[in-house]
Amino acid sequence: MAEKVLSVEKQLDIRFSEVDMMGVVWHGAYATYLEDAREAFGARYGLSYTKYIVEYTFAPVVDLRLSYKKPLRYGMKPVVRITYRPTDAAKIVFDYVIFNPADGEVFLTGTSVQVFMDKDYKLLWESPAFYTQWKQEMGLL
Amino acid sequence: MAEKVLSVEKQLDIRFSEVDMMGVVWHGAYATYLEDAREAFGARYGLSYTKYIVEYTFAPVVDLRLSYKKPLRYGMKPVVRITYRPTDAAKIVFDYVIFNPADGEVFLTGTSVQVFMDKDYKLLWESPAFYTQWKQEMGLL
Amino acid sequence: MAEKVLSVEKQLDIRFSEVDMMGVVWHGAYATYLEDAREAFGARYGLSYTKYIVEYTFAPVVDLRLSYKKPLRYGMKPVVRITYRPTDAAKIVFDYVIFNPADGEVFLTGTSVQVFMDKDYKLLWESPAFYTQWKQEMGLL
Amino acid sequence: MAEKVLSVEKQLDIRFSEVDMMGVVWHGAYATYLEDAREAFGARYGLSYTKYIVEYTFAPVVDLRLSYKKPLRYGMKPVVRITYRPTDAAKIVFDYVIFNPADGEVFLTGTSVQVFMDKDYKLLWESPAFYTQWKQEMGLL
Repeated sequence: MAEKVLSVEKQLDIRFSEVDMMGVVWHGAYATYLEDAREAFGARYGLSYTKYIVEYTFAPVVDLRLSYKKPLRYGMKPVVRITYRPTDAAKIVFDYVIFNPADGEVFLTGTSVQVFMDKDYKLLWESPAFYTQWKQEMGLL
Repeated sequence: MAEKVLSVEKQLDIRFSEVDMMGVVWHGAYATYLEDAREAFGARYGLSYTKYIVEYTFAPVVDLRLSYKKPLRYGMKPVVRITYRPTDAAKIVFDYVIFNPADGEVFLTGTSVQVFMDKDYKLLWESPAFYTQWKQEMGLL
Repeated sequence: MAEKVLSVEKQLDIRFSEVDMMGVVWHGAYATYLEDAREAFGARYGLSYTKYIVEYTFAPVVDLRLSYKKPLRYGMKPVVRITYRPTDAAKIVFDYVIFNPADGEVFLTGTSVQVFMDKDYKLLWESPAFYTQWKQEMGLL
Repeated sequence: MAEKVLSVEKQLDIRFSEVDMMGVVWHGAYATYLEDAREAFGARYGLSYTKYIVEYTFAPVVDLRLSYKKPLRYGMKPVVRITYRPTDAAKIVFDYVIFNPADGEVFLTGTSVQVFMDKDYKLLWESPAFYTQWKQEMGLL
Protein backbone atom coordinates (compact mmCIF):
# COMPACT_ATOMS: atom_id res chain seq x y z
CA MET A 1 0.00 0.00 0.00
CA ALA A 2 1.31 3.39 -0.95
CA GLU A 3 2.04 5.73 1.91
CA LYS A 4 -0.42 8.58 2.27
CA VAL A 5 -0.29 11.94 3.93
CA LEU A 6 -3.72 13.38 4.54
CA SER A 7 -3.22 16.88 5.81
CA VAL A 8 -4.86 20.30 5.62
CA GLU A 9 -3.66 23.77 6.55
CA LYS A 10 -6.01 26.53 7.56
CA GLN A 11 -5.34 30.13 8.52
CA LEU A 12 -6.76 31.08 11.90
CA ASP A 13 -8.52 34.34 12.62
CA ILE A 14 -7.98 35.12 16.27
CA ARG A 15 -11.14 36.53 17.76
CA PHE A 16 -10.99 39.39 20.22
CA SER A 17 -13.14 37.30 22.58
CA GLU A 18 -10.52 34.55 22.56
CA VAL A 19 -7.84 36.77 24.05
CA ASP A 20 -7.63 36.92 27.82
CA MET A 21 -6.69 39.69 30.21
CA MET A 22 -3.02 38.76 29.83
CA GLY A 23 -3.24 39.72 26.16
CA VAL A 24 -2.78 36.18 24.87
CA VAL A 25 -5.19 33.63 23.47
CA TRP A 26 -6.90 31.85 26.37
CA HIS A 27 -5.65 28.26 26.47
CA GLY A 28 -9.15 26.81 26.26
CA ALA A 29 -9.82 28.58 22.95
CA TYR A 30 -7.40 26.28 21.15
CA ALA A 31 -10.01 23.51 21.30
CA THR A 32 -12.02 25.52 18.79
CA TYR A 33 -8.97 26.02 16.58
CA LEU A 34 -8.46 22.27 16.44
CA GLU A 35 -12.13 21.80 15.69
CA ASP A 36 -11.83 24.34 12.89
CA ALA A 37 -8.98 22.21 11.56
CA ARG A 38 -11.08 19.03 11.74
CA GLU A 39 -13.84 20.83 9.86
CA ALA A 40 -11.40 21.84 7.15
CA PHE A 41 -10.07 18.30 7.00
CA GLY A 42 -13.58 16.88 6.75
CA ALA A 43 -14.52 19.35 4.04
CA ARG A 44 -11.52 18.47 1.91
CA TYR A 45 -11.54 14.71 2.41
CA GLY A 46 -15.24 14.06 2.85
CA LEU A 47 -15.38 13.16 6.53
CA SER A 48 -17.83 15.61 8.08
CA TYR A 49 -20.15 15.74 11.09
CA THR A 50 -23.07 15.72 8.71
CA LYS A 51 -22.04 12.28 7.54
CA TYR A 52 -21.84 10.98 11.09
CA ILE A 53 -25.28 12.32 11.82
CA VAL A 54 -26.83 10.66 8.78
CA GLU A 55 -25.44 7.39 10.08
CA TYR A 56 -26.76 8.08 13.59
CA THR A 57 -23.22 7.85 14.82
CA PHE A 58 -21.06 10.37 16.50
CA ALA A 59 -17.38 10.64 17.05
CA PRO A 60 -16.64 12.30 20.38
CA VAL A 61 -13.15 13.36 21.32
CA VAL A 62 -12.00 11.01 24.09
CA ASP A 63 -8.43 12.16 24.43
CA LEU A 64 -6.93 15.59 23.92
CA ARG A 65 -3.33 16.61 24.47
CA LEU A 66 -2.21 20.16 24.02
CA SER A 67 1.32 21.38 24.35
CA TYR A 68 1.57 25.17 24.32
CA LYS A 69 4.94 26.31 23.04
CA LYS A 70 4.49 30.05 22.77
CA PRO A 71 1.52 32.36 23.40
CA LEU A 72 -0.60 33.54 20.50
CA ARG A 73 -1.46 37.21 20.57
CA TYR A 74 -4.17 39.33 19.07
CA GLY A 75 -3.49 40.26 15.46
CA MET A 76 -1.33 37.24 14.68
CA LYS A 77 -2.22 35.17 11.62
CA PRO A 78 -1.12 31.65 12.49
CA VAL A 79 -1.85 28.51 10.53
CA VAL A 80 -3.12 25.25 11.94
CA ARG A 81 -2.04 22.08 10.17
CA ILE A 82 -4.00 18.92 10.85
CA THR A 83 -2.63 15.51 9.87
CA TYR A 84 -4.48 12.22 9.92
CA ARG A 85 -2.61 9.50 11.80
CA PRO A 86 -3.50 6.05 10.41
CA THR A 87 -4.61 3.45 12.92
CA ASP A 88 -6.20 0.02 12.72
CA ALA A 89 -8.41 0.70 15.73
CA ALA A 90 -11.96 2.03 15.52
CA LYS A 91 -10.61 5.51 16.16
CA ILE A 92 -9.82 8.76 14.42
CA VAL A 93 -6.47 10.21 15.46
CA PHE A 94 -5.29 13.66 14.39
CA ASP A 95 -2.07 15.51 15.04
CA TYR A 96 -2.01 19.28 15.00
CA VAL A 97 0.54 22.02 14.86
CA ILE A 98 -0.17 25.74 15.01
CA PHE A 99 2.65 27.78 13.55
CA ASN A 100 3.64 31.05 11.96
CA PRO A 101 3.83 30.47 8.20
CA ALA A 102 6.28 33.37 7.83
CA ASP A 103 9.07 31.95 10.00
CA GLY A 104 7.95 28.49 11.04
CA GLU A 105 7.70 29.32 14.72
CA VAL A 106 5.51 26.83 16.57
CA PHE A 107 2.82 27.94 19.03
CA LEU A 108 1.12 24.64 19.82
CA THR A 109 1.27 20.95 19.08
CA GLY A 110 -1.58 18.64 19.91
CA THR A 111 -3.28 15.33 19.36
CA SER A 112 -6.91 14.29 19.49
CA VAL A 113 -8.43 10.83 19.58
CA GLN A 114 -12.04 10.23 18.62
CA VAL A 115 -14.04 7.05 19.00
CA PHE A 116 -17.44 6.15 17.61
CA MET A 117 -20.66 5.97 19.57
CA ASP A 118 -24.17 5.10 18.53
CA LYS A 119 -27.06 7.42 19.26
CA ASP A 120 -27.45 5.94 22.75
CA TYR A 121 -23.84 6.91 23.57
CA LYS A 122 -22.70 3.29 23.42
CA LEU A 123 -19.12 2.82 22.27
CA LEU A 124 -18.72 1.08 18.91
CA TRP A 125 -15.84 -1.37 18.99
CA GLU A 126 -15.85 -1.77 15.22
CA SER A 127 -15.50 1.11 12.81
CA PRO A 128 -18.86 2.11 11.34
CA ALA A 129 -19.37 1.26 7.67
CA PHE A 130 -18.96 4.83 6.43
CA TYR A 131 -15.55 5.16 8.09
CA THR A 132 -14.23 1.88 6.65
CA GLN A 133 -15.49 2.95 3.24
CA TRP A 134 -13.86 6.35 3.62
CA LYS A 135 -10.54 4.70 4.49
CA GLN A 136 -10.80 2.57 1.36
CA GLU A 137 -11.53 5.58 -0.81
CA MET A 138 -8.53 7.35 0.68
CA GLY A 139 -6.30 4.36 -0.03
CA LEU A 140 -5.71 3.78 3.69
CA LEU A 141 -6.79 0.13 3.69
CA MET B 1 8.28 16.88 55.93
CA ALA B 2 4.73 15.74 56.54
CA GLU B 3 2.84 14.57 53.49
CA LYS B 4 0.19 16.98 52.31
CA VAL B 5 -2.89 16.63 50.19
CA LEU B 6 -4.10 19.95 48.84
CA SER B 7 -7.37 19.28 47.12
CA VAL B 8 -10.72 20.97 46.52
CA GLU B 9 -14.04 19.69 45.24
CA LYS B 10 -16.54 21.87 43.45
CA GLN B 11 -19.96 21.09 42.06
CA LEU B 12 -20.34 21.96 38.39
CA ASP B 13 -23.40 23.60 36.90
CA ILE B 14 -23.61 22.51 33.30
CA ARG B 15 -24.67 25.43 31.13
CA PHE B 16 -27.11 24.90 28.29
CA SER B 17 -24.61 26.64 26.01
CA GLU B 18 -21.96 24.03 26.86
CA VAL B 19 -24.03 21.17 25.47
CA ASP B 20 -23.60 20.35 21.80
CA MET B 21 -26.01 19.07 19.18
CA MET B 22 -25.27 15.51 20.26
CA GLY B 23 -26.76 16.31 23.65
CA VAL B 24 -23.48 16.04 25.54
CA VAL B 25 -21.11 18.61 26.94
CA TRP B 26 -18.85 19.83 24.14
CA HIS B 27 -15.33 18.54 24.79
CA GLY B 28 -13.81 22.03 24.69
CA ALA B 29 -16.04 23.22 27.54
CA TYR B 30 -14.12 21.10 30.03
CA ALA B 31 -11.27 23.61 29.93
CA THR B 32 -13.58 26.02 31.74
CA TYR B 33 -14.52 23.36 34.28
CA LEU B 34 -10.86 22.85 35.09
CA GLU B 35 -10.39 26.57 35.33
CA ASP B 36 -13.34 26.76 37.72
CA ALA B 37 -11.53 24.13 39.79
CA ARG B 38 -8.29 26.15 39.79
CA GLU B 39 -10.27 29.19 40.91
CA ALA B 40 -11.78 27.22 43.78
CA PHE B 41 -8.35 25.90 44.69
CA GLY B 42 -6.87 29.37 44.63
CA ALA B 43 -9.72 30.76 46.74
CA ARG B 44 -9.27 28.11 49.43
CA TYR B 45 -5.48 28.02 49.53
CA GLY B 46 -4.64 31.60 48.61
CA LEU B 47 -3.17 31.16 45.14
CA SER B 48 -5.27 33.33 42.86
CA TYR B 49 -4.87 35.14 39.55
CA THR B 50 -5.13 38.41 41.42
CA LYS B 51 -1.94 37.55 43.26
CA TYR B 52 -0.11 36.79 40.03
CA ILE B 53 -1.19 40.08 38.58
CA VAL B 54 0.00 42.07 41.57
CA GLU B 55 3.40 40.46 41.04
CA TYR B 56 3.31 41.24 37.29
CA THR B 57 3.61 37.55 36.68
CA PHE B 58 1.30 35.18 34.95
CA ALA B 59 1.01 31.46 34.97
CA PRO B 60 -0.14 30.22 31.57
CA VAL B 61 -1.16 26.63 31.02
CA VAL B 62 1.56 25.04 28.86
CA ASP B 63 0.36 21.46 28.91
CA LEU B 64 -3.15 20.10 29.10
CA ARG B 65 -4.19 16.46 28.94
CA LEU B 66 -7.81 15.47 29.02
CA SER B 67 -9.08 11.92 29.02
CA TYR B 68 -12.83 11.74 28.50
CA LYS B 69 -14.28 8.61 30.09
CA LYS B 70 -17.99 9.13 29.69
CA PRO B 71 -20.08 11.98 28.26
CA LEU B 72 -21.64 14.55 30.57
CA ARG B 73 -25.22 15.42 29.77
CA TYR B 74 -27.45 18.34 30.48
CA GLY B 75 -28.96 18.25 33.97
CA MET B 76 -26.17 16.21 35.53
CA LYS B 77 -24.58 17.57 38.72
CA PRO B 78 -21.00 16.31 38.61
CA VAL B 79 -18.18 17.31 40.89
CA VAL B 80 -14.68 18.32 39.83
CA ARG B 81 -11.86 17.50 42.24
CA ILE B 82 -8.57 19.30 41.77
CA THR B 83 -5.41 18.05 43.47
CA TYR B 84 -2.08 19.85 43.65
CA ARG B 85 0.82 17.67 42.54
CA PRO B 86 4.03 18.74 44.31
CA THR B 87 7.05 19.41 42.09
CA ASP B 88 10.45 20.99 42.59
CA ALA B 89 10.32 22.70 39.20
CA ALA B 90 9.11 26.27 38.65
CA LYS B 91 5.72 24.87 37.68
CA ILE B 92 2.20 24.39 38.99
CA VAL B 93 0.82 20.94 38.27
CA PHE B 94 -2.78 19.95 38.96
CA ASP B 95 -4.63 16.68 38.51
CA TYR B 96 -8.36 16.68 37.97
CA VAL B 97 -11.16 14.20 38.07
CA ILE B 98 -14.79 14.92 37.22
CA PHE B 99 -17.13 12.38 38.76
CA ASN B 100 -20.65 11.69 39.93
CA PRO B 101 -20.66 12.09 43.72
CA ALA B 102 -23.66 9.77 43.99
CA ASP B 103 -22.03 6.67 42.54
CA GLY B 104 -18.39 7.56 41.91
CA GLU B 105 -18.66 7.23 38.14
CA VAL B 106 -15.82 9.07 36.40
CA PHE B 107 -16.44 11.36 33.42
CA LEU B 108 -13.01 12.87 32.91
CA THR B 109 -9.49 12.81 34.22
CA GLY B 110 -6.98 15.48 33.35
CA THR B 111 -3.73 17.21 34.14
CA SER B 112 -2.56 20.77 33.62
CA VAL B 113 0.92 22.22 33.84
CA GLN B 114 1.49 25.93 34.31
CA VAL B 115 4.75 27.83 34.16
CA PHE B 116 5.54 31.38 35.12
CA MET B 117 6.12 34.25 32.75
CA ASP B 118 6.92 37.86 33.34
CA LYS B 119 4.86 40.63 31.82
CA ASP B 120 6.88 40.45 28.60
CA TYR B 121 5.93 36.76 28.20
CA LYS B 122 9.44 35.63 29.11
CA LEU B 123 9.61 32.27 30.83
CA LEU B 124 10.78 32.39 34.45
CA TRP B 125 13.12 29.50 35.21
CA GLU B 126 12.93 30.13 38.95
CA SER B 127 9.70 30.19 40.91
CA PRO B 128 8.60 33.74 41.67
CA ALA B 129 8.88 34.80 45.31
CA PHE B 130 5.15 34.64 46.01
CA TYR B 131 4.99 30.99 44.87
CA THR B 132 7.93 29.90 46.99
CA GLN B 133 6.41 31.68 49.95
CA TRP B 134 3.05 30.03 49.30
CA LYS B 135 4.70 26.60 49.22
CA GLN B 136 6.32 27.35 52.55
CA GLU B 137 3.03 28.43 54.08
CA MET B 138 1.42 25.24 52.82
CA GLY B 139 4.20 23.15 54.31
CA LEU B 140 5.32 21.96 50.88
CA LEU B 141 8.97 22.97 51.29
CA MET C 1 -56.05 38.27 40.36
CA ALA C 2 -53.39 39.00 42.96
CA GLU C 3 -50.29 40.70 41.67
CA LYS C 4 -47.24 38.47 41.55
CA VAL C 5 -43.53 39.09 41.42
CA LEU C 6 -41.59 36.07 40.23
CA SER C 7 -37.95 36.88 40.62
CA VAL C 8 -34.68 35.16 41.48
CA GLU C 9 -31.24 36.49 42.38
CA LYS C 10 -28.06 34.59 41.71
CA GLN C 11 -24.46 35.45 42.47
CA LEU C 12 -22.21 35.37 39.41
CA ASP C 13 -18.73 33.88 39.39
CA ILE C 14 -16.76 35.71 36.73
CA ARG C 15 -14.57 33.27 34.86
CA PHE C 16 -11.06 34.23 33.86
CA SER C 17 -11.93 33.18 30.30
CA GLU C 18 -14.78 35.70 30.22
CA VAL C 19 -12.46 38.66 30.72
CA ASP C 20 -11.01 40.27 27.62
CA MET C 21 -7.69 41.91 26.95
CA MET C 22 -9.09 45.22 28.22
CA GLY C 23 -9.48 43.61 31.63
CA VAL C 24 -13.28 43.69 31.60
CA VAL C 25 -15.88 41.00 30.99
CA TRP C 26 -16.31 40.55 27.24
CA HIS C 27 -19.74 41.88 26.26
CA GLY C 28 -20.78 38.59 24.66
CA ALA C 29 -20.25 36.69 27.92
CA TYR C 30 -23.28 38.34 29.47
CA ALA C 31 -25.52 36.08 27.38
CA THR C 32 -24.34 33.21 29.57
CA TYR C 33 -24.99 35.22 32.73
CA LEU C 34 -28.57 35.77 31.64
CA GLU C 35 -28.87 32.10 30.79
CA ASP C 36 -27.57 31.25 34.27
CA ALA C 37 -30.33 33.46 35.62
CA ARG C 38 -32.99 31.71 33.54
CA GLU C 39 -31.69 28.37 34.83
CA ALA C 40 -31.98 29.60 38.41
CA PHE C 41 -35.47 30.90 37.70
CA GLY C 42 -36.50 27.60 36.13
CA ALA C 43 -35.08 25.64 39.05
CA ARG C 44 -36.99 27.67 41.62
CA TYR C 45 -40.29 27.97 39.77
CA GLY C 46 -40.33 24.73 37.82
CA LEU C 47 -39.83 26.00 34.28
CA SER C 48 -36.75 24.22 32.98
CA TYR C 49 -35.31 23.19 29.63
CA THR C 50 -35.87 19.59 30.62
CA LYS C 51 -39.60 20.23 30.72
CA TYR C 52 -39.55 21.78 27.26
CA ILE C 53 -37.72 18.80 25.90
CA VAL C 54 -40.18 16.31 27.35
CA GLU C 55 -42.90 18.20 25.50
CA TYR C 56 -40.84 18.22 22.28
CA THR C 57 -40.97 21.97 22.40
CA PHE C 58 -38.23 24.49 22.65
CA ALA C 59 -38.19 28.11 23.62
CA PRO C 60 -35.54 29.96 21.65
CA VAL C 61 -34.59 33.53 22.48
CA VAL C 62 -35.92 35.70 19.63
CA ASP C 63 -35.11 39.09 21.04
CA LEU C 64 -32.28 40.18 23.28
CA ARG C 65 -31.51 43.70 24.47
CA LEU C 66 -28.51 44.43 26.58
CA SER C 67 -27.64 47.80 27.99
CA TYR C 68 -24.17 47.89 29.51
CA LYS C 69 -23.92 50.51 32.24
CA LYS C 70 -20.51 49.85 33.72
CA PRO C 71 -17.82 47.26 32.98
CA LEU C 72 -17.53 44.17 35.16
CA ARG C 73 -14.00 43.28 36.14
CA TYR C 74 -12.28 40.14 37.26
CA GLY C 75 -12.76 39.40 40.94
CA MET C 76 -16.10 41.23 41.26
CA LYS C 77 -19.01 39.32 42.80
CA PRO C 78 -22.07 40.79 41.14
CA VAL C 79 -25.61 39.49 41.39
CA VAL C 80 -28.00 38.94 38.50
CA ARG C 81 -31.70 39.39 39.25
CA ILE C 82 -34.18 37.94 36.79
CA THR C 83 -37.83 38.98 36.85
CA TYR C 84 -40.66 37.40 34.91
CA ARG C 85 -42.71 39.93 32.97
CA PRO C 86 -46.32 38.70 32.57
CA THR C 87 -47.73 38.70 29.04
CA ASP C 88 -50.81 37.26 27.37
CA ALA C 89 -48.85 36.30 24.26
CA ALA C 90 -47.32 32.86 23.65
CA LYS C 91 -44.00 34.23 24.87
CA ILE C 92 -41.70 34.21 27.86
CA VAL C 93 -40.33 37.65 28.71
CA PHE C 94 -37.66 38.24 31.32
CA ASP C 95 -36.03 41.42 32.59
CA TYR C 96 -32.56 41.31 34.06
CA VAL C 97 -30.35 43.54 36.11
CA ILE C 98 -26.77 42.80 37.11
CA PHE C 99 -25.71 44.81 40.13
CA ASN C 100 -23.35 45.02 43.05
CA PRO C 101 -25.24 43.83 46.12
CA ALA C 102 -22.94 45.86 48.39
CA ASP C 103 -23.80 49.29 47.00
CA GLY C 104 -26.55 48.78 44.44
CA GLU C 105 -24.39 49.88 41.51
CA VAL C 106 -25.82 48.63 38.20
CA PHE C 107 -23.62 46.99 35.54
CA LEU C 108 -26.21 45.84 33.04
CA THR C 109 -29.91 45.81 32.35
CA GLY C 110 -31.44 43.55 29.78
CA THR C 111 -34.54 41.89 28.41
CA SER C 112 -35.06 38.60 26.61
CA VAL C 113 -38.08 37.35 24.71
CA GLN C 114 -38.59 33.66 24.02
CA VAL C 115 -41.20 32.04 21.81
CA PHE C 116 -42.16 28.41 21.46
CA MET C 117 -41.27 26.16 18.56
CA ASP C 118 -42.05 22.56 17.88
CA LYS C 119 -39.35 20.06 17.08
CA ASP C 120 -39.45 21.05 13.41
CA TYR C 121 -38.64 24.67 14.34
CA LYS C 122 -42.19 25.79 13.54
CA LEU C 123 -43.40 28.71 15.62
CA LEU C 124 -46.26 27.90 18.01
CA TRP C 125 -48.81 30.70 18.05
CA GLU C 126 -50.55 29.30 21.12
CA SER C 127 -48.75 28.62 24.39
CA PRO C 128 -48.00 24.93 24.81
CA ALA C 129 -50.06 23.13 27.48
CA PHE C 130 -47.23 22.93 29.99
CA TYR C 131 -46.72 26.70 29.92
CA THR C 132 -50.40 27.50 30.40
CA GLN C 133 -50.50 25.03 33.27
CA TRP C 134 -47.39 26.58 34.78
CA LYS C 135 -48.95 30.04 34.62
CA GLN C 136 -52.02 28.71 36.43
CA GLU C 137 -49.91 27.12 39.12
CA MET C 138 -48.06 30.41 39.58
CA GLY C 139 -51.33 32.31 39.85
CA LEU C 140 -50.61 34.26 36.67
CA LEU C 141 -53.87 33.42 34.92
CA MET D 1 -21.32 66.09 1.64
CA ALA D 2 -21.79 63.07 -0.57
CA GLU D 3 -23.75 60.24 1.00
CA LYS D 4 -21.63 57.25 1.98
CA VAL D 5 -22.40 53.63 2.59
CA LEU D 6 -19.66 51.88 4.54
CA SER D 7 -20.53 48.24 4.60
CA VAL D 8 -18.82 44.85 4.55
CA GLU D 9 -20.11 41.35 3.98
CA LYS D 10 -18.44 38.28 5.43
CA GLN D 11 -19.31 34.61 5.12
CA LEU D 12 -19.77 32.89 8.45
CA ASP D 13 -18.44 29.44 9.27
CA ILE D 14 -20.72 27.94 11.87
CA ARG D 15 -18.67 26.05 14.44
CA PHE D 16 -19.89 22.76 15.80
CA SER D 17 -19.37 24.17 19.30
CA GLU D 18 -21.77 27.03 18.53
CA VAL D 19 -24.71 24.69 17.94
CA ASP D 20 -26.82 23.76 20.95
CA MET D 21 -28.68 20.60 21.85
CA MET D 22 -31.68 21.80 19.87
CA GLY D 23 -29.55 21.65 16.73
CA VAL D 24 -29.50 25.40 16.17
CA VAL D 25 -26.85 28.04 16.77
CA TRP D 26 -26.97 29.05 20.42
CA HIS D 27 -28.31 32.61 20.64
CA GLY D 28 -25.28 33.85 22.56
CA ALA D 29 -22.92 32.80 19.78
CA TYR D 30 -24.20 35.57 17.53
CA ALA D 31 -22.22 38.09 19.58
CA THR D 32 -19.09 36.54 18.08
CA TYR D 33 -20.55 36.70 14.57
CA LEU D 34 -21.14 40.42 15.00
CA GLU D 35 -17.63 40.81 16.35
CA ASP D 36 -16.30 38.96 13.31
CA ALA D 37 -18.19 41.50 11.21
CA ARG D 38 -16.68 44.42 13.10
CA GLU D 39 -13.23 42.90 12.58
CA ALA D 40 -13.88 42.64 8.84
CA PHE D 41 -15.16 46.21 8.80
CA GLY D 42 -12.11 47.43 10.68
CA ALA D 43 -9.78 45.55 8.36
CA ARG D 44 -11.32 47.05 5.24
CA TYR D 45 -11.77 50.59 6.48
CA GLY D 46 -8.87 50.92 8.88
CA LEU D 47 -10.68 50.98 12.21
CA SER D 48 -9.26 48.12 14.23
CA TYR D 49 -8.79 47.22 17.90
CA THR D 50 -5.06 47.57 17.40
CA LYS D 51 -5.55 51.24 16.63
CA TYR D 52 -7.61 51.76 19.77
CA ILE D 53 -4.94 50.11 21.86
CA VAL D 54 -2.17 52.28 20.46
CA GLU D 55 -4.23 55.26 21.53
CA TYR D 56 -4.84 53.79 25.00
CA THR D 57 -8.52 53.96 24.27
CA PHE D 58 -11.07 51.24 24.03
CA ALA D 59 -14.49 51.10 22.54
CA PRO D 60 -16.72 48.82 24.58
CA VAL D 61 -20.13 47.78 23.35
CA VAL D 62 -22.67 49.56 25.57
CA ASP D 63 -25.84 48.58 23.79
CA LEU D 64 -26.66 45.45 21.86
CA ARG D 65 -29.97 44.55 20.29
CA LEU D 66 -30.49 41.25 18.55
CA SER D 67 -33.63 40.19 16.79
CA TYR D 68 -33.59 36.51 15.83
CA LYS D 69 -35.77 35.87 12.80
CA LYS D 70 -35.01 32.26 12.01
CA PRO D 71 -32.66 29.70 13.55
CA LEU D 72 -29.29 29.02 11.96
CA ARG D 73 -28.38 25.36 11.69
CA TYR D 74 -25.16 23.48 11.38
CA GLY D 75 -23.85 23.36 7.82
CA MET D 76 -25.48 26.61 6.69
CA LYS D 77 -23.27 29.22 5.04
CA PRO D 78 -24.86 32.54 5.94
CA VAL D 79 -23.42 35.97 5.36
CA VAL D 80 -23.24 38.79 7.88
CA ARG D 81 -23.44 42.32 6.53
CA ILE D 82 -22.30 45.14 8.77
CA THR D 83 -23.19 48.75 7.98
CA TYR D 84 -21.83 51.84 9.67
CA ARG D 85 -24.54 54.19 10.85
CA PRO D 86 -23.28 57.79 10.88
CA THR D 87 -23.77 59.74 14.10
CA ASP D 88 -22.50 63.03 15.47
CA ALA D 89 -22.11 61.59 18.96
CA ALA D 90 -18.86 60.14 20.33
CA LYS D 91 -20.12 56.69 19.42
CA ILE D 92 -19.74 53.93 16.87
CA VAL D 93 -23.05 52.50 15.73
CA PHE D 94 -23.33 49.45 13.49
CA ASP D 95 -26.32 47.68 12.01
CA TYR D 96 -26.11 44.01 11.12
CA VAL D 97 -28.07 41.53 9.12
CA ILE D 98 -27.31 37.83 8.82
CA PHE D 99 -28.87 36.32 5.73
CA ASN D 100 -28.71 33.52 3.21
CA PRO D 101 -26.99 34.89 0.10
CA ALA D 102 -28.72 32.30 -2.07
CA ASP D 103 -32.31 33.37 -1.38
CA GLY D 104 -32.09 36.48 0.77
CA GLU D 105 -33.71 34.85 3.80
CA VAL D 106 -32.92 36.77 6.99
CA PHE D 107 -31.79 35.01 10.18
CA LEU D 108 -30.94 37.96 12.40
CA THR D 109 -30.91 41.73 12.50
CA GLY D 110 -29.02 43.62 15.14
CA THR D 111 -27.49 46.86 16.26
CA SER D 112 -24.50 47.65 18.44
CA VAL D 113 -23.44 50.91 20.03
CA GLN D 114 -19.90 51.48 21.20
CA VAL D 115 -18.55 54.39 23.21
CA PHE D 116 -14.99 55.36 23.98
CA MET D 117 -13.26 54.92 27.29
CA ASP D 118 -9.77 55.77 28.41
CA LYS D 119 -7.52 53.20 30.01
CA ASP D 120 -9.07 53.89 33.43
CA TYR D 121 -12.53 52.98 32.06
CA LYS D 122 -13.63 56.61 32.11
CA LEU D 123 -16.15 57.51 29.44
CA LEU D 124 -14.89 59.95 26.80
CA TRP D 125 -17.54 62.50 25.90
CA GLU D 126 -15.60 63.69 22.87
CA SER D 127 -14.50 61.40 20.06
CA PRO D 128 -10.80 60.55 20.34
CA ALA D 129 -8.54 62.11 17.71
CA PHE D 130 -8.05 58.91 15.72
CA TYR D 131 -11.81 58.46 15.29
CA THR D 132 -12.40 62.02 14.11
CA GLN D 133 -9.52 61.65 11.69
CA TRP D 134 -10.92 58.34 10.45
CA LYS D 135 -14.30 59.95 9.83
CA GLN D 136 -12.60 62.68 7.81
CA GLU D 137 -10.68 60.16 5.74
CA MET D 138 -13.92 58.29 5.08
CA GLY D 139 -15.64 61.50 4.00
CA LEU D 140 -18.09 61.30 6.89
CA LEU D 141 -17.40 64.80 8.22
